Amino acid sequence: MSEIHPIAWNSGSRILTLLDQTLLPSREKYIDHTDPETVAEAISTLVVRGAPAIGCAAAFGLVLASYQYSGTDGKALAGWVADAADLLADSRPTAVNLAWALKRMLEVLEKTGGQDVGRIQNSLEAEAIAIFNEDLASCRKMGNIGAGLVPENARIMTYCNAGALATAGYGTALGVIRSAHRMGKVRTVWVCETRPVLQGARLTYWELMKEGIGCTLVTDNIVGSLMSAGDVDLVVVGADRIAANGDVANKIGTYTVAVLAERHNVPFVVAAPLSTIDLSKATGESIPIEERPPEEISGYGGVSWVPNGARIYNPAFDVTPADLVHAIVSERGIAQAPYSSSLNALFASGD
Amino acid sequence: MSEIHPIAWNSGSRILTLLDQTLLPSREKYIDHTDPETVAEAISTLVVRGAPAIGCAAAFGLVLASYQYSGTDGKALAGWVADAADLLADSRPTAVNLAWALKRMLEVLEKTGGQDVGRIQNSLEAEAIAIFNEDLASCRKMGNIGAGLVPENARIMTYCNAGALATAGYGTALGVIRSAHRMGKVRTVWVCETRPVLQGARLTYWELMKEGIGCTLVTDNIVGSLMSAGDVDLVVVGADRIAANGDVANKIGTYTVAVLAERHNVPFVVAAPLSTIDLSKATGESIPIEERPPEEISGYGGVSWVPNGARIYNPAFDVTPADLVHAIVSERGIAQAPYSSSLNALFASGD
Repeated sequence: MSEIHPIAWNSGSRILTLLDQTLLPSREKYIDHTDPETVAEAISTLVVRGAPAIGCAAAFGLVLASYQYSGTDGKALAGWVADAADLLADSRPTAVNLAWALKRMLEVLEKTGGQDVGRIQNSLEAEAIAIFNEDLASCRKMGNIGAGLVPENARIMTYCNAGALATAGYGTALGVIRSAHRMGKVRTVWVCETRPVLQGARLTYWELMKEGIGCTLVTDNIVGSLMSAGDVDLVVVGADRIAANGDVANKIGTYTVAVLAERHNVPFVVAAPLSTIDLSKATGESIPIEERPPEEISGYGGVSWVPNGARIYNPAFDVTPADLVHAIVSERGIAQAPYSSSLNALFASGD
Repeated sequence: MSEIHPIAWNSGSRILTLLDQTLLPSREKYIDHTDPETVAEAISTLVVRGAPAIGCAAAFGLVLASYQYSGTDGKALAGWVADAADLLADSRPTAVNLAWALKRMLEVLEKTGGQDVGRIQNSLEAEAIAIFNEDLASCRKMGNIGAGLVPENARIMTYCNAGALATAGYGTALGVIRSAHRMGKVRTVWVCETRPVLQGARLTYWELMKEGIGCTLVTDNIVGSLMSAGDVDLVVVGADRIAANGDVANKIGTYTVAVLAERHNVPFVVAAPLSTIDLSKATGESIPIEERPPEEISGYGGVSWVPNGARIYNPAFDVTPADLVHAIVSERGIAQAPYSSSLNALFASGD
C-alpha cells in the first residue's frame, strides 16, 4: 500500500494538511490549511494537483469554510460556504472533479437546510471524508480492474502524474501500474518527464521509486522513438475530464502520445473515476482548457533559459479524441467504444 | 543578413573562435581555440552544434592540427593531421557532415602528399575556408529555394535549432524562414523548446528575436494540440543525416512532429545541404544514434528536478521515415518522393 499522503484531514484539530507537490522531489514539506482561501491558492499554484486530489482538497476547503463560521444562523452559514465554493470553483477550470466535489458538498448543504449550525458542519465534514474515502477505494478498484488489461512482462508508458499524489491515494493510472506490479506483470515503466511542470520527472518517478517499481525517465519527445523501436507495450494515463463521447482532456501532450500509440498499435488506456466523466459535455471541444503562466516554460527553480521578453503560449491540457482511446478504466469496470453508450452504462450500473 | 557568427576563423593569428552555445541566451561568450583537442571537446559538449556547423568546426580543427606541426616532414605532418581527424570524428556520431568535412580535408592531405609542409598547411586552410564559405552559400540558396514552399501568411513550426548557429551562418530551416520572412510570407513562427538541451528555447528564439521575426515559444508536447487547432501551416526542420531512401535523422522528437504533421495534413519539410545526405546508408536504420549524458535531462543550470539515482535514457536523435517527409530542400533544389531517385538526381545535377 502506498505511504504517500498528499491530503490529510485532521478531524480533531480541523486542519487540512497538504504535501507541497511543487517542492518534490527535493523537499517533502507538508503545509497546514485552516481556511478555504489558502486551499484555493494551493490548488491554483499546484501545491495539490491531479483531478481527483483537487476534488478532495476543495471538499475539505468547504469544511474549513463552514467551521470558520462561528454564528448560529444556518442560512448565514450556507451563504458563507457557497461563497467559498465559488472561490474554490475558480481555482482551476479543466478538471471536472473539482466542480463535481463542490456540487456534492452543496447538495449536502441544501439537504441540511434548517438544521442547526453544528449539524450542518458535521454533515459537510462527513461528506468530504466520504468523497476522500470513496476516491481511495475507487483507485484501488480501478487498479485491480485495469491491471487485467496489462500483458505479462509489460513495458508500460505513463504520462504526467496520475498517482497517489493526484488522488486520495494509490492513483488512477499509477494505481493500474501498482496493481499490475503486484501481480508480477510489469517489466518496466517509461516515465515521460511531462513539460512544463515536470510532474513525470518530479512526482511519478518519485512515487515509483518509493514503491520499488523499475522505471526509466525520458523526455516527452522520445515517445515516438521508443514506440517505433517496439519498446512500449501499453500506455496508461489519467484524465482531467472525459466528455460523454469519450474524448479525454488530460495534461498537454497526452494527445501526442495517443497519436503515436495508434500509429504503433500500442493500446492507449485511460484510468479515471466516474467523478472525472462529465456527461454534460457532448464532446471534448466544449471542455475549458486552462492557460497557465509563461514562467512554467521559461525556467525552473529560479533559473531561466529563455530570452527576456519571449512570447510564450502555455495551455495546460489537450483533448485526445475518443477514437484513439482503447479503453477507459473506472471503478465500475472498463468502457470501450462506442463510449456514448458504454460510459452511460457505467453510471447506470451502480456499485 | 544574419549577424550571428558561431564560427570565425582568423587566418592571421590561426585562431578558431567559437560562440559558446551552451551559455546562450544569457551570455554571448566567444572562446578561442588553437588545437584540435579543444575543438573536439567543444563539439562533444555542444559549445558548437548543428550538423553543418560541426563539419566546419572539425575542418578548422584539422587546420589547427596541421599548424601545430613545426617540423619539415610532410609525411609526419600527414600522420599528425590524420590522428586529429580520428579524434574529431569520434566527437559526435550522428551528423554525417562531420565525417564528410573530415573526408574532404583528408583528400586534400592525400593530394598534397610530397609537397612541403607549408604548402600542405595552406591547402588544408584553403579547403576548410572553402567548406565554410560553401556552407554559407548553400544556406542562402536553400533559404531562397525553400521559401517557395512557404504559403502566404504562414504560421511555420520549427524544431531544435537549424539556424545560423547550426551552420556557417543563415541556417538551413531558419534560412528558409528568414528568406520567406523577407518575402513577407511569414505570419508567425512556433518555436518548440526542444528538450532536453532546449536548443529551440535558447537558440532559435534568440535568433528569430535578433532578426525581428515574430515567434512564440511552446513546449514540444503542445505540437499536437496546435496542429489539431489548425494553427500550423508548415513544419520546417533541419537534419543531421539523411539516408539514401530519404529517411531523416534529426533531433529527438522530430519523428513525433512528423507523425502529427501527417495526421493534420501539415507539410513536413526538411532543409539540409548535400553534405548531410549520406548515400552510403540505404535507410535510416543504419544511422548511428548518439546517446548523451543523463544530466541533460535531470536538470539545468545547476538545478536538478529529478530524484537522486533516477535511471534516465537520453538518445539525442530519432529517425523520421521518408514517407512522412513532404520535401527535402537542398542548395541544388527540392527533392520529393521517391527519394531514392530524387536524392541521387541532386548529386548528379552539379551546381
